[in-house]
Amino acid sequence: MGKTVNLAQYLFARLHQLGVRSVHGVPGDYTLRALDALKPAGLRWIGNCNELNAGYAADGYARVKGISALCTTYGVGELSAINAVAGSFAEYSPVVHVVGCAARKAYKSKAVIHHSLGDGNLRVFADMYKNVTVASASLFDPDTAPDLIDKTLEQCVKESRPVYVELPSDMVGAEVPESRLATPLDVHPPKNDGKLEEKVLDAVLDRIYTAKQPYILVDGLVAPDQIVEEVNEFVRVTGFPTFALTFGGGIVNSKLKNYHGVHASSYGSLDFTPYTDRADLALLFGPLLSDTNTQGWSAVPKKASTIAFRRNAIEIGESESHALHIKAFMKKLLVRLEPKRLPSDIPQALSLPRHSFRAEPAGLENEKPLAPINQDKFYRHISSFFRPHDIIVCANGTPLVGGRDFILPPKTKLINSSIFLSVGHMLPATQGAALAQKELGTGGRTIFFEGDGSFQATAQELSTIIRYKLDVYIFIINNDGYTFERLIHGLHEEYNDVAPWRYLQAPEMFGAPNDGSYDVETHDVGTWGELAKVLASEKFQNGRGLKMVNVRMAREDVTSNFRAALKLAGQQLMVDPGDEQ
Amino acid sequence: MGKTVNLAQYLFARLHQLGVRSVHGVPGDYTLRALDALKPAGLRWIGNCNELNAGYAADGYARVKGISALCTTYGVGELSAINAVAGSFAEYSPVVHVVGCAARKAYKSKAVIHHSLGDGNLRVFADMYKNVTVASASLFDPDTAPDLIDKTLEQCVKESRPVYVELPSDMVGAEVPESRLATPLDVHPPKNDGKLEEKVLDAVLDRIYTAKQPYILVDGLVAPDQIVEEVNEFVRVTGFPTFALTFGGGIVNSKLKNYHGVHASSYGSLDFTPYTDRADLALLFGPLLSDTNTQGWSAVPKKASTIAFRRNAIEIGESESHALHIKAFMKKLLVRLEPKRLPSDIPQALSLPRHSFRAEPAGLENEKPLAPINQDKFYRHISSFFRPHDIIVCANGTPLVGGRDFILPPKTKLINSSIFLSVGHMLPATQGAALAQKELGTGGRTIFFEGDGSFQATAQELSTIIRYKLDVYIFIINNDGYTFERLIHGLHEEYNDVAPWRYLQAPEMFGAPNDGSYDVETHDVGTWGELAKVLASEKFQNGRGLKMVNVRMAREDVTSNFRAALKLAGQQLMVDPGDEQ
Repeated sequence: MGKTVNLAQYLFARLHQLGVRSVHGVPGDYTLRALDALKPAGLRWIGNCNELNAGYAADGYARVKGISALCTTYGVGELSAINAVAGSFAEYSPVVHVVGCAARKAYKSKAVIHHSLGDGNLRVFADMYKNVTVASASLFDPDTAPDLIDKTLEQCVKESRPVYVELPSDMVGAEVPESRLATPLDVHPPKNDGKLEEKVLDAVLDRIYTAKQPYILVDGLVAPDQIVEEVNEFVRVTGFPTFALTFGGGIVNSKLKNYHGVHASSYGSLDFTPYTDRADLALLFGPLLSDTNTQGWSAVPKKASTIAFRRNAIEIGESESHALHIKAFMKKLLVRLEPKRLPSDIPQALSLPRHSFRAEPAGLENEKPLAPINQDKFYRHISSFFRPHDIIVCANGTPLVGGRDFILPPKTKLINSSIFLSVGHMLPATQGAALAQKELGTGGRTIFFEGDGSFQATAQELSTIIRYKLDVYIFIINNDGYTFERLIHGLHEEYNDVAPWRYLQAPEMFGAPNDGSYDVETHDVGTWGELAKVLASEKFQNGRGLKMVNVRMAREDVTSNFRAALKLAGQQLMVDPGDEQ
Repeated sequence: MGKTVNLAQYLFARLHQLGVRSVHGVPGDYTLRALDALKPAGLRWIGNCNELNAGYAADGYARVKGISALCTTYGVGELSAINAVAGSFAEYSPVVHVVGCAARKAYKSKAVIHHSLGDGNLRVFADMYKNVTVASASLFDPDTAPDLIDKTLEQCVKESRPVYVELPSDMVGAEVPESRLATPLDVHPPKNDGKLEEKVLDAVLDRIYTAKQPYILVDGLVAPDQIVEEVNEFVRVTGFPTFALTFGGGIVNSKLKNYHGVHASSYGSLDFTPYTDRADLALLFGPLLSDTNTQGWSAVPKKASTIAFRRNAIEIGESESHALHIKAFMKKLLVRLEPKRLPSDIPQALSLPRHSFRAEPAGLENEKPLAPINQDKFYRHISSFFRPHDIIVCANGTPLVGGRDFILPPKTKLINSSIFLSVGHMLPATQGAALAQKELGTGGRTIFFEGDGSFQATAQELSTIIRYKLDVYIFIINNDGYTFERLIHGLHEEYNDVAPWRYLQAPEMFGAPNDGSYDVETHDVGTWGELAKVLASEKFQNGRGLKMVNVRMAREDVTSNFRAALKLAGQQLMVDPGDEQ
C-alpha cells in the first residue's frame, strides 16, 4: 500500500489538518501508546486533572477554534467526561472524543477487564455515547478505519457537534496508507438547491421590505454556524433594531447604533417588550430557544411573525421550513438586499434604553468608593475593562445573568451556556479557551467570571491554567453559596451553602511557580473603590499570567429585574418548570 | 386515603428505615423542594462540591453502611454522577440515586428545558441509567409511586447494586398514604429450595472432605453478600490455607493462622502459586474476577477444581450452577460441617511465607532513619499503626497494589476497587466512609492512602471532609505523577506528569477553620525516621480531625514483584490487554 503511517498518527494528522493543536485529556493504560503519536503529529498534550474537566476544557477550546479533541480512557474515563460531551452536543461545540479502549480480542472474548462493568458487554459505553454525538468511528478494522475516521471528523465539523472515536489499543499501530492524508477532508457545507434558494430569498426579502416594525434577534448558534460576520453586516445594512438572546450576547458589534443589547423580556435590566411585543417581523439568527435562554420562552417572538435562520433550514412563519444551508444563504441575502427598499419609518424610540444604559456613569469613579459592589452595576462597570479581541467567559448562575449587561467592545467573544448549564463547566472551558486564544495569536485576554459555588466544582483546573502558564483573569463572584438557587428556593437553607474556601490561596496551593516564570496576582475587593484601584493598575491590565480577584457581593444579591424570574421559577417548580426557568 | 405524607417525605422515610442517615449530592432547581423533606425525615444533607464526587462519596458510604443515597438534579447532575454510579454497579455498592427532574408537563410537551439536550427527549438520561442500575422508579403517577419506590429500594438492597429514582418537581408534594410506611420493606434474601440446598450441601461437603490440597480464596463481594462472619468462621473451622484476592484483602481476620494474605500470583510480594497451582480444590467466596483483581486471571483457580460461592449461585466445577442464595447456604454449611471429617494431612509449608512476612522487622525503628521511604516496605510498616475497627481506604494506582501487603488487625475494613478503578474515586469515598463510620459509632478511624495524581482528580472533597468536621487520615503517596501508568508505558513522557501542587496547603485553602473547632495537622515525610516520628505522636494517633501526611516516594517506585506485571501490561496493550492488567 505504499508508504504507511500508523492509525494513531493518521487520526492525529487529520485533527491537525482541521486546526487542532492541543489535545485535552487524562492518560490511562488503554490510551498510552496512542499518546506517543501526538508530538510527531504536531499536537500538544494538555493533561487535565480529571476527565470531566478535560471535556469541559475541550468544549471551551472548540468554542474558540471551531474544533477540538479530547482523549480519555475506556469506561471510567469516557463516562466521567460524558456530561461535558453532552453539553457540547446540546450547545453545538465540535469536540472529537477519542477513547482508548481494550484490544480487539477482549471484545471478542467479552473479557471481564478493568474499567468495564464486569458483565462482558464492552459496547455499553459506546452505545451511551450515541445519544450525545452525531457520528462515531469504531476502529476495529484496519481496512476501513481511515475512511471511518475521515467521515466521522467531517461530520463533526459539518454539524458542529461532538463525535466519538473508539481506538482499541492494538489498533494504534495498525498501518494505513499515508497517501490518503494528501486529500483534505471535505468539510464544506452542502451546496444549496439554487432554485429553492432564490425562491426563499424572494420570500424573505419580501417580508423584510414590507415590515412595519421589524427587529433582529441574534442567538449564540450564529457562532458555530459561522455567520458572525454576515449577521453583523445584515444588522449594519438594515439598521433594524437588534437584540441578542443571552447565549448570543457577544455576537453583534456593540458599536452598531441599532444594537440594543440582550433581550430578556421583562426580566432584563432593559425591557424591550414594548417594541418586540408589537413587532410584525422578527429575524431570528442561530436560535437555541431553551427556557433559560429566553426567560421561559417569554423572549421568543411569535412564530407567525418570525423568520428563523438555522444552520440547515430557513423557517418562515408558522409552518414553512426550507432545507438550505445558512452560510451560503446569508451571503446571497447580503448580495441581494437592496437598502433603498428597506422600510424607512421604523419606530426609533427604541434606541433610548440602550443609550441611557450607556450614558449612565460608566466610570467606577462615580460610585461611592466605600459602597459595596453589587450585581446590578458590576457587569456594566467591568465592561470598561474589556478590550477588543478579549474572550469573556461567564459561568452559570449570577454571572450568566449579570453578563447580559456587558457592553462589549468590537471583536470580543462572549462564552456562556444556553441550555445545558452544568455547574463548574466554565473554569475548565476558560482554560481551553485561553489556550486556543494563545494558539491563534490574536492578542486579547481571557477574562472569566464565576460564582464561588461553581468554582468549587472544578477548581483543580486552575492548576492546569498555571501548569501550562496560560494568561487568564478570574473574577470570583463570591456571594457565599448558591445564590441563584437560594433565590429560587431555600433562601436560608443549608443545602444552598458551600464550604468557606480561602479562594485566593488557590494559586499557591495549585502549584504556582515562585521562580518568576509565571506571574500571579490576587486581589480581594468588596467595594467600588477597591475594585477601581485594581482595575486601574497597569500591571493588572497587561493580561499576563493569572490575575485572580475575589469580588465579595451580598449573599442574596442578583440583578434587580431578574429577581422576579427566580421567584417565579421557584413557585412554578410545583406546576411546570417549563413555563419559566 | 387517611393520613398522608408527601412523596418526598415517603421516599426519605423509606431510606431512613433502611439505615440511611445522610444524603449526598449537589442542589439544583429541580431538586430544591425535595430537599426540604430531608430534615423532617431525620436525614442530613451532605453537599459535595460536584455530582461525580457526590456519587463517589455515596459509594463509600454504602460500602460501610450497606445502603446510601445520592441526590442530583436532572441531566447535568445525573450525567456528571453516572461514572460513580457505574462504579457502584460494577462493584456492588447499593446506592439509591434520586434525580430531581422537571415537572411532568415538560415531559408531555417535550419542552426544550435547561439541563436537557434540547431535542425534547427528556427520557434520554433515564435510559442511559438503565445500563448501570438494577431497577428504576419513574414517579410520574401518585397512585403507583409509593409501590414503585418500595419495589425499587427493595431491589437495591437485595441485589446490593444501584437503583434510579426519577422525581419530577411537581410530584414532590403529591400526597400518598402514610399508613404504608408501617409495613417494613421486604429486603430478606429469597428462601432457598430446601431440597436443592441439601443436595448441593452434600456435593460441596463431599468435595471438602475428600480434598487433598484445598485452599480458600476470599474476594471482596463477601462484604456486600453479607457473609463476612460466615466466611471467617469457615476459614477458622476448616483451617484450610486461605488467601484473599486484592478486592477481598480486608475480609479475613489476620489473626487466623491459616490466613496468608493477598494472593497476587507471581506478582504479589508473597508468591503462593507453588501451593495454589497444585491444589485440587479452591473454595472461592464472593468473586469479582477482573483482570486487575486477579493479575490477568493468573490468580484465578482452574474451574474444574473450584467451588464458587456467589450471591445467588453455588457453582461447582466446570458447569454445575445452582440457584441458591449464599447467606442461608453458608449458615447451613457451617452447621453441617463436621470438623473431624476434614482432610487432616494438608501441606502446611504454606504458613511459612506469611509467617516470615510477619516476622520481618515490623517496627520502623529497625529501618535506617535517613533512608527514603519505599513502596516495598511502606504498607507493611504502616500496618503497625492500624487498630481494630479502623476503615482503611486504598486509592487506585500504587496504593491499591501496595495495600496488598497490609497486615490488618481484626475488625478492620479495607475499601478498594476491584474492576472499575476510576481515578479519584477514593477521596470522596473516604468522605462517605468516614461519615458512615461516625454515624455507626463503632469507634475506629478512617485512614486513606492515595497517590498525588488521583488526589488531584477530586481534591475538593477534602473541603467536604473539613466542612462536616469528619475524622480522616490522608496519606498522599507523592511520587510526582502517574507512576502506575509510567511503569506500564511512557516512563518519562510528559503525559504521565501532573502539576506540582503544594498538597499540605490544601486544608487551609479548602477552608479549615482556625477557631479550634476542628483539628488539622499536616506533615511532610520522606524518610523512615520522619515517618516514625509522626506515627509515634499520641496526638497524631488520636484520630480526631484531619491528619494529612505527604509521603514522598521515588517517582518510579512500586512494590518489587509488581513491576513485572506493569511491564507486561505495557507490552500486551499491543496484543491483548485482557491477558494481563
